[in-house]
Amino acid sequence: MSWLPPGPIDHVGIAVHELDTASATYVDLLGAVRGHREVVEGQGVEVLFLELPGTTRLELIAPLDDRSPVARFLAKRGEGLHHICVLVDDIAAALAALQEHEVPLVDATARPGAGGTRIAFLHPQALGGVLLELKERPR
Amino acid sequence: MSWLPPGPIDHVGIAVHELDTASATYVDLLGAVRGHREVVEGQGVEVLFLELPGTTRLELIAPLDDRSPVARFLAKRGEGLHHICVLVDDIAAALAALQEHEVPLVDATARPGAGGTRIAFLHPQALGGVLLELKERPR
Repeated sequence: MSWLPPGPIDHVGIAVHELDTASATYVDLLGAVRGHREVVEGQGVEVLFLELPGTTRLELIAPLDDRSPVARFLAKRGEGLHHICVLVDDIAAALAALQEHEVPLVDATARPGAGGTRIAFLHPQALGGVLLELKERPR
Repeated sequence: MSWLPPGPIDHVGIAVHELDTASATYVDLLGAVRGHREVVEGQGVEVLFLELPGTTRLELIAPLDDRSPVARFLAKRGEGLHHICVLVDDIAAALAALQEHEVPLVDATARPGAGGTRIAFLHPQALGGVLLELKERPR
């Protein structure tokens, strides 16, 4: 049995300098539809979800200022793929299971994400350099 | 109207040094299930698909040798998120539409991908640093 119950990929996060210009390309080229947009102060970002057919969306992430972790990502690596997010039914149970297996976490407890959700990030070391976000499935 | 008809994200590609070790983490931690595995000689890689609930899978990609583009990616950036792949119904029509809009392409014509599919990559400049693969929906 796996440490987390298998869940779908909710979205793929993409770091960008600015939401309007970046999203125009995804709309024109891929036919993505602009969805929920929100400033997430706790993470120092503004995010814009782009809807596509299927169960996985894209999330464009732009920093609010130079101190945002996403600003540091952009300075180091430029615009590009940033993280993947999978849905879990119970984020507290998921984090407890991961801590039991000594998986390195960025967030030991869930914190507020976009759209009133509860989220947590694993440390990239947990998954070979891939930054993984857990998001509690809205009830 | 967008240049491509909107399609779901088929998979997210992740560059790794070696498939067995990397996939064990995804199986143990996320409950992913190992699926199709194949050497794709034309791209100098071996790939392993990891199935999750929902419409989007993960694709682990390991280089066959040092000349593989994925080996260069690993040398430069280390293991991590590599590309996203969206499904299209007609890849020849999709590539023609992109060329009409002067979108920079890696592959001007479709080439063989894993599992007998027909695929093509756009140049990362087309989508703000994100490498995008198109895959023709199996008929």
